[in-house]
Amino acid sequence: MELLFKHRSIRKYKEEPIDEQVLNKVIEAGTRASNTGNMQLYSVVVTKDAAAKAQLAPLHFNQPMVKQAPVLLTICADINRFNQWCELNQADAGYNNLLWILNATIDASLFAQNMCVEAESHGLGICYLGTALYNAQEFIDALELPKGVFPVTALVVGYPDQEPPLTDRLPLEAVVHQEKYADYAAERIASLHAEKESLESSKQFVKENNKQNLAQVFTDVRYKKADNELFSAKLMETLRKQGFKLD
Amino acid sequence: MELLFKHRSIRKYKEEPIDEQVLNKVIEAGTRASNTGNMQLYSVVVTKDAAAKAQLAPLHFNQPMVKQAPVLLTICADINRFNQWCELNQADAGYNNLLWILNATIDASLFAQNMCVEAESHGLGICYLGTALYNAQEFIDALELPKGVFPVTALVVGYPDQEPPLTDRLPLEAVVHQEKYADYAAERIASLHAEKESLESSKQFVKENNKQNLAQVFTDVRYKKADNELFSAKLMETLRKQGFKLD
Repeated sequence: MELLFKHRSIRKYKEEPIDEQVLNKVIEAGTRASNTGNMQLYSVVVTKDAAAKAQLAPLHFNQPMVKQAPVLLTICADINRFNQWCELNQADAGYNNLLWILNATIDASLFAQNMCVEAESHGLGICYLGTALYNAQEFIDALELPKGVFPVTALVVGYPDQEPPLTDRLPLEAVVHQEKYADYAAERIASLHAEKESLESSKQFVKENNKQNLAQVFTDVRYKKADNELFSAKLMETLRKQGFKLD
Repeated sequence: MELLFKHRSIRKYKEEPIDEQVLNKVIEAGTRASNTGNMQLYSVVVTKDAAAKAQLAPLHFNQPMVKQAPVLLTICADINRFNQWCELNQADAGYNNLLWILNATIDASLFAQNMCVEAESHGLGICYLGTALYNAQEFIDALELPKGVFPVTALVVGYPDQEPPLTDRLPLEAVVHQEKYADYAAERIASLHAEKESLESSKQFVKENNKQNLAQVFTDVRYKKADNELFSAKLMETLRKQGFKLD
């Protein structure tokens, strides 16, 4: 399907708002995705208000499209609604654990991806914001997410004001294994990453950051070990506060 | 997009195999989905061999479509490939923690959902198998998944031999919150679930299982608290064995 192969993350948007009917159609398409036992373990918080977007922008590390795009969607894993339904029906729920953190994360992700496909079919552009997980506690506070709910990811949505080139991907064979997982030898890792490393943009990242190679740009600049460990510990604490047992 | 609104999970397949080019196109469409920092933290293990499917079937609780569908895809969160690239480049990775379990789970889920959309655009049908997470250790053993890799979900893919009706969903307003999360009052929970509870199929589930209401079918039959806790503890242990720090 051409639409899927044309997907680009859009980081610059027109001011044009999104028609309410179109936005509802986008969200409804999200709900048509498969989900765990039809429990629909997700919610979305729609932010359109300029002041509210300005408040959330720093939590998304001030990526400019947060304020610029007409709509920001915070996609949440949500066992709260299901738990409340259980409580109302004297049904003994037991979903506050790692298994259901992952089930709800998957549900929320499939919901999000269907929204992206539908949005693009209406000529809209999207960009995922991974920052939702990094600052989960701050989003919980700002959006008043109750126990059982946490942000999984966020999307900005709007009419594109740029046409960025297609992003590179590893050769297809890098992600596919036939019948069993065939672990990689060092030479194979090198050859699978050769094209990525040879891109002009990659060389520029390495140079700008004064690193020896592209992998070091990831580990020393973009996603540093110390940051990963700090944000992961924060996330663990946040999930516990939201009522999940993690031990 | 009509395709998204027509999605049904298919549980009965024709014997017809999937053309290799079509299957590659499906997987390639998966890789066009957004992902964390373009790190592509996922892999897919393709199972076509009848004996291999028969071996995996019990791990999927013997759902008959596992043996029947021509292709089974086990979709994995994968930090192994990235870690190996880092190691080869003297780059100090730090992705073996909860934050990256979730990042990789999201990456794998978006990859999976794009594959579903592409598959359906070729007239194929799909069904997600949530069992991948329940028996993660057993899949790791059977598919020889190395440290840093775990199954997130699985898909059967093939040409549909049934036309099931569209599955119900909660009213759209149940999953959408404007600007802030508006927590539910008991009456609202009841009214949002009224239609679902009134379906003939729901009434039949309640009756067959000798329960008082539909919520109890979920908590006492389909996803029991004791099972949830058991499988969650197993999953935690498995992820630790795969090299993730969870404390």
